[in-house]
Amino acid sequence: MRVFIAGIDGYLGWPLAQVLTARGHEVVGTDTLLRRQWVEEMGSDSALPVYSVEERLQAFQEKYGKPLDFRQDDLLDYERLRDFFIEFKPDAIVHLGQMPSAPYSMIDQKHSVFTQHNNIISNLNILWAMREVCPDAHLLKLGTMGEYGTPNIDIPEGFFEIEYNGRKDTMPFPRQANSFYHWSKVHDSNLTMFTSRIWGLRATDVMQGVVFGTQIDEMGDDPRLRSRLDFDQCFGTAINRFCCQVVVGHPLTLYGVGHQKRGFLPMRDSMQCMTLALENPPQHGEYRVFNQFEETYTLTELAEMTRDVAAELGFDVQINNYENPRQEMAEHYYNPARNNLINLGYKPTHNVKAEMKIMIQDLMEHKERILAKKEILVPDIRWDGTHRRSEIIGTHAEPVTSS
Amino acid sequence: MRVFIAGIDGYLGWPLAQVLTARGHEVVGTDTLLRRQWVEEMGSDSALPVYSVEERLQAFQEKYGKPLDFRQDDLLDYERLRDFFIEFKPDAIVHLGQMPSAPYSMIDQKHSVFTQHNNIISNLNILWAMREVCPDAHLLKLGTMGEYGTPNIDIPEGFFEIEYNGRKDTMPFPRQANSFYHWSKVHDSNLTMFTSRIWGLRATDVMQGVVFGTQIDEMGDDPRLRSRLDFDQCFGTAINRFCCQVVVGHPLTLYGVGHQKRGFLPMRDSMQCMTLALENPPQHGEYRVFNQFEETYTLTELAEMTRDVAAELGFDVQINNYENPRQEMAEHYYNPARNNLINLGYKPTHNVKAEMKIMIQDLMEHKERILAKKEILVPDIRWDGTHRRSEIIGTHAEPVTSS
Repeated sequence: MRVFIAGIDGYLGWPLAQVLTARGHEVVGTDTLLRRQWVEEMGSDSALPVYSVEERLQAFQEKYGKPLDFRQDDLLDYERLRDFFIEFKPDAIVHLGQMPSAPYSMIDQKHSVFTQHNNIISNLNILWAMREVCPDAHLLKLGTMGEYGTPNIDIPEGFFEIEYNGRKDTMPFPRQANSFYHWSKVHDSNLTMFTSRIWGLRATDVMQGVVFGTQIDEMGDDPRLRSRLDFDQCFGTAINRFCCQVVVGHPLTLYGVGHQKRGFLPMRDSMQCMTLALENPPQHGEYRVFNQFEETYTLTELAEMTRDVAAELGFDVQINNYENPRQEMAEHYYNPARNNLINLGYKPTHNVKAEMKIMIQDLMEHKERILAKKEILVPDIRWDGTHRRSEIIGTHAEPVTSS
Repeated sequence: MRVFIAGIDGYLGWPLAQVLTARGHEVVGTDTLLRRQWVEEMGSDSALPVYSVEERLQAFQEKYGKPLDFRQDDLLDYERLRDFFIEFKPDAIVHLGQMPSAPYSMIDQKHSVFTQHNNIISNLNILWAMREVCPDAHLLKLGTMGEYGTPNIDIPEGFFEIEYNGRKDTMPFPRQANSFYHWSKVHDSNLTMFTSRIWGLRATDVMQGVVFGTQIDEMGDDPRLRSRLDFDQCFGTAINRFCCQVVVGHPLTLYGVGHQKRGFLPMRDSMQCMTLALENPPQHGEYRVFNQFEETYTLTELAEMTRDVAAELGFDVQINNYENPRQEMAEHYYNPARNNLINLGYKPTHNVKAEMKIMIQDLMEHKERILAKKEILVPDIRWDGTHRRSEIIGTHAEPVTSS
């Protein structure tokens, strides 16, 4: 299969290029390299060293025995994107090329506008280029479980049948996102659903949970093949942040009470699921939604698991509650379905602690890199539009209660 | 009340400025004047003459005894918008400043991108400027009934209580728009709902039906105070187009079978509803949705009413079915609620034929202007991304049947 990856330099794009190549697929991709700049803008750096594109491509060629066509293109440049499609004739397009951070989108007017423009127009350009060049190709688009929010009812996979005032219909499940970033993804999902209908495009829209992890088997011991690992408030997601906090002796930062429940999955599960979706494409004109996560956990459960794994490795970890900079529900129901991927053969890892152990060990080697940026471990971007670093409001020994 | 109108030169903005001024409110506004260019781009022109801004403002001063602060600003310029808010201190903002056409957004990649960028970023800029300058002001934002699409169940006003797998929740009603334009409005609605929650803004989101009409009482006989009236495939809406077709002897253009059902309202009802919403603002942090239409009709019913009214005025009108350039349901259920405005005191006109008669009489005076653009009366922008003028597939005497 000929696979085009948008965002091939990213946390998921770089490992996916390797997984698909190892499975015999032909892979090309683009990236603006903007993620490297955004993390720098946050005063942070990847905990694992990120090698230059040239070094990554050299390692790729050494490991997989062939060069990778990787172009530093911007998806906002429609003509370049279309011309690359014409040249490569993709069977599948994996769209990972977005600004992926909720807090980054909430910084101020400029960042919210950038997020809307960048994410929405780049996705729309991919849809138009597919229509024009490769209408038979399969779009695997990365959405997020955050599109659904935390409704008080079960979360199906994209659609549900409802009865209202005595009549029935199957409709898109209402989205209740909680950041300008997440709403940009909702809009991408809507436009992808729409163009699948009017142009007959086929698409898999992956509502992915929070990914964690430092490696997959394909990377071996070559650090140039490893992915990035962020720990700042914008680009560092929960478990990744916790593991970085462990190795520098910083308390784990729970936001608020820490009872927020979300879907999580290790990077290796994300790779497994995306590969399954690609190798089992939908029909023409079909828009399907996969909820993609290994299991749901509360953030407190994950912090406790991180602490326990760290203890086995000799770390004495404290867990603190900080003022929640986000406006989100402290206590809520959460029961999303994830049958579609299971039906395709997805085998959830079900061993988060083993993954955490690998992560902490990998990160211990780069403790100095995290220590150098230790001051950015507590968030200050607030959902009300102001900026103030969160204060400690409780500890695991004396937890705060939700009001 | 101090009211800021975005899009004050438009079909609804110009009459609303007059209605609100006549009721004693203080009105200012901005407009890019882009609508004048878009209609020209379509090879068309307003059937009623549109006077220059200077002439409009001169007439406004003569009629209402005070000048109107009207600035040719673009909502995409955040700093200018914010500075105007700082200077004027609005109590209410009416947001009519958008690219309002479904077919225009479907022309090609560039037009779809323009629509997303222009509509989404301008609305987002208004939200940020409100947060920064006037968080107590009331946003009256124009959405469209087209955001809902045509589901097989009743359409409530924005939200509904549902039961799913044995649990209940009140959720946003799922949106199923049918053009890049309509989806841009869905996204605007979502971001407005979101910022009402996180910033405590108050907003009324008007899901408006299709507006028709050439005048309101306030305009009197001064042609400089009249609004524009478009009849091209992009900016001419159904009844407006039909009345223009009548006066030049062109068959009324039904798309497909013509059984599509939509909500419609005369311009004077639109003015009445928006005034009611402004003079009865929501609470702080409240995001309310009003479905705004006088009644629902099928397009065939409206064509027949137009024909009957035209017959009284001596016209012999033919009704033809043309290939539908849109991909929409030919036959469908349609039952939207509109209780919120009725509860505030909205009195629907319930006399579409009287309005049609005024329209045809007004348009007869400008027959030559429509005749000059007669070749653009049949659509050619297709939802599949191609362009081809629709052929006649049936007549009212021998109607096409839906398959």
